[in-house]
Amino acid sequence: MHILVTGAAGMIGHKLVERLLADRALGGTAITRLTLHDIVPPRAAQQGIAITSHASDFSAPGEAEKLVAGRPDVIFHLAAIVSGEAEENFDKGYRVNLDGTRRLFEAIRTLQDYKPRLVFTSSIAVFGAPFPDRIGDEFLSTPQTSYGTQKAIDELLLSDYSRRGFLDGIGIRLPTICVRPGKPNKAASGFFSNIMREPLAGQEAVLPVTDTVRHWHASPRTAVGFLIHAATMDLAMLGARRCLSMPGVSVTVAEQIEALRRVAGEPAVRLIKRVDDPFVASIVANWPRNFDTRRALALGFKPDDSFEAILRTHVADELGGKIAA
Amino acid sequence: MHILVTGAAGMIGHKLVERLLADRALGGTAITRLTLHDIVPPRAAQQGIAITSHASDFSAPGEAEKLVAGRPDVIFHLAAIVSGEAEENFDKGYRVNLDGTRRLFEAIRTLQDYKPRLVFTSSIAVFGAPFPDRIGDEFLSTPQTSYGTQKAIDELLLSDYSRRGFLDGIGIRLPTICVRPGKPNKAASGFFSNIMREPLAGQEAVLPVTDTVRHWHASPRTAVGFLIHAATMDLAMLGARRCLSMPGVSVTVAEQIEALRRVAGEPAVRLIKRVDDPFVASIVANWPRNFDTRRALALGFKPDDSFEAILRTHVADELGGKIAA
Repeated sequence: MHILVTGAAGMIGHKLVERLLADRALGGTAITRLTLHDIVPPRAAQQGIAITSHASDFSAPGEAEKLVAGRPDVIFHLAAIVSGEAEENFDKGYRVNLDGTRRLFEAIRTLQDYKPRLVFTSSIAVFGAPFPDRIGDEFLSTPQTSYGTQKAIDELLLSDYSRRGFLDGIGIRLPTICVRPGKPNKAASGFFSNIMREPLAGQEAVLPVTDTVRHWHASPRTAVGFLIHAATMDLAMLGARRCLSMPGVSVTVAEQIEALRRVAGEPAVRLIKRVDDPFVASIVANWPRNFDTRRALALGFKPDDSFEAILRTHVADELGGKIAA
Repeated sequence: MHILVTGAAGMIGHKLVERLLADRALGGTAITRLTLHDIVPPRAAQQGIAITSHASDFSAPGEAEKLVAGRPDVIFHLAAIVSGEAEENFDKGYRVNLDGTRRLFEAIRTLQDYKPRLVFTSSIAVFGAPFPDRIGDEFLSTPQTSYGTQKAIDELLLSDYSRRGFLDGIGIRLPTICVRPGKPNKAASGFFSNIMREPLAGQEAVLPVTDTVRHWHASPRTAVGFLIHAATMDLAMLGARRCLSMPGVSVTVAEQIEALRRVAGEPAVRLIKRVDDPFVASIVANWPRNFDTRRALALGFKPDDSFEAILRTHVADELGGKIAA
C-alpha cells in the first residue's frame, strides 16, 4: 500500500507518519511506500517502506500532479495555511487552502481508473456564532474567518468529487488539539494548551480568560486515531454526507485546571497566572463550546475518555511519563 | 445610480431589467445607467437611462474586470450554468458557476474604494436529502448536484468577501419559479409549471409524478420582488449570515391542481394527463418540500399569498388576463 501525506511536517502530520511507520500497515494491508509532502528533510527508507519526500508548495501549478503520479492508495490531505495567517494574507490563504486543495482533487480526477481514499482534515472553524449549546450534525456552516471559509469550501468540493466517483473522500473536523506539544504560541487558542503543558513541565503559563470559558478538545494521539479510522472504515456508511465533526471532550477552563490538579497536584496549578486579555476573550467568545457528534460516534470514531485522560496521554507521549512540577 | 445585471437575458434577469426600466429608480434613487451582461442584443437608451450590453462569457479571464470597470453601485449577479448542464458538463459548471463568480468578486476586491451592493441568486439546490419536514434557517448545506455545490461555495465566498468589507453582499435562495413562462422544457422540475401553464393556454400537459408530491414555489414577479428588496434593504440586519432561503408557497401537486380548478375550471384540469415517470419521480423525491423561512419574513421579504395567487399573477403578467381553457 502506498500512502501520501500532505502537510507531513505539521504537528499532526508528523505524529501520523510516526504512527504509520510504527504500525507498518493500514487497515490490515502492509505499507510499502510513503510519499511525504511538506518542507521536510528527506528520510531514508525504513523497515522496507520506501519514503519519498517532496518539499514543494503543493498549491503551485503542476505540483499536485507530481504528488499523485505514483497513484497513492490513501491520501491524507493535511496541508494548509493556518487560521491566523489565512486571515492576515487573504491571497495566500485562498491560493493554498482553496486552490491547492482543488488542484489536488483535479489531479486525482484527471488520472484514469484511479479513485483513492482521501482523508481531509477540516476544522470546527467552519462553524460561526451564534451557536446552540451543542452543535449537531445538521448545523449549518457559516464560518467567520477566511480559513473556516476555505475549509467549508473544501468540504463541499470533497463531497461533490466523491459523489461523482472521482475520489472516495471523507472530511473530518478535528477538535482543538490539546495538549499541543512544543513552545507556547500566539494563536488565540494557544492558552488552552499552554496552561497545561507549561505547568506539567514546571513552567509558568498565562490564562488570559475567565475559567468559565468552555471549549472542545482532543489529544494528538486521538486525532491521529481519527485519521486512521477515516482511512480504513467503510465509507458507504457515510452516505452522501462526507464531512462530519469528530467527537471531543467539552470542558471549561476550570475543569481543565481541576484535571491538572488531579494529575500533577497543587504546585502545577499554582504555575497558572491569571492575566485577563479582553482581546483574546472576545475572540474566544465566538468559538464553538460543545458538539453533539452522535454520527461520528455511531461510525466508530473514538474520543478521549476525559480531559484527565488527555493530560495523561500528554504525559505519556511527550514527557516520557514524568511530571516536572 | 448605475446597476449591473449579469444573466440579464435569463427569465428572471429579463423580468428584473423590465422592472428596473419601469421603476426608473431603485430604493428611491434614480437609475441613470444599466450595464447588462448576457448573450443579449444591445438596447438603446430608454427614458434617460444609458444601457450598455456585454455579450461575453463573464467567466473568461478579464471579462469580470470589464463589467465592474464602471463601478456599478448595485450588482445583480444572476448568470449561471443551469443545474442539468452543470451536472452533464463538470468543467463548464465549475468554470462558470464557481470560477466566474469568484472572478467577479475578485474584480470588485481589486478596485480601490469600491464596495457595491451585490445580490446573488443562490438556490435551494444547496440542500440535500434527508430533510426535515421544513428546512429551517440553520439547516446544513449538503448539495447533491454539482450546481448546488457551486452555489453553496459561492455563498461562502460572498459571506467572506462581505465580512472582509470587499463588497456588501446578500445571497438569496429562490424557490422553484412557478409558473415559469415559455415552452415546456425537459428539466425534471418542468412539470410543476407545465401542468399549470399549458392548460391555462388550452394545451395538454403531462404530470409524471403522483399528486402527493410537495414542492416550494414562487412566481417570477415575487422573485423579482425578492431581488429588489435584497438590493435596497439595510444589510446590517443580516449580521454575519449573508445568505438565506426566500419564502415560498409549499403545496402538493393536488393542491396545485385544485388552485387551477378554481382559477380556470374543470376543462383546464382535464388537460393534465397522468403519465408516471419513475425516473422523474426518483429525482423529485430528493428535493426540498417545505421551508421555515422566518428569517426572510422578519427581514421583510414578501412571498406570494397562495398558489392560487401565483396562478392569477401568471394570468395577469403572461396572458394579458385571458385564460384559454
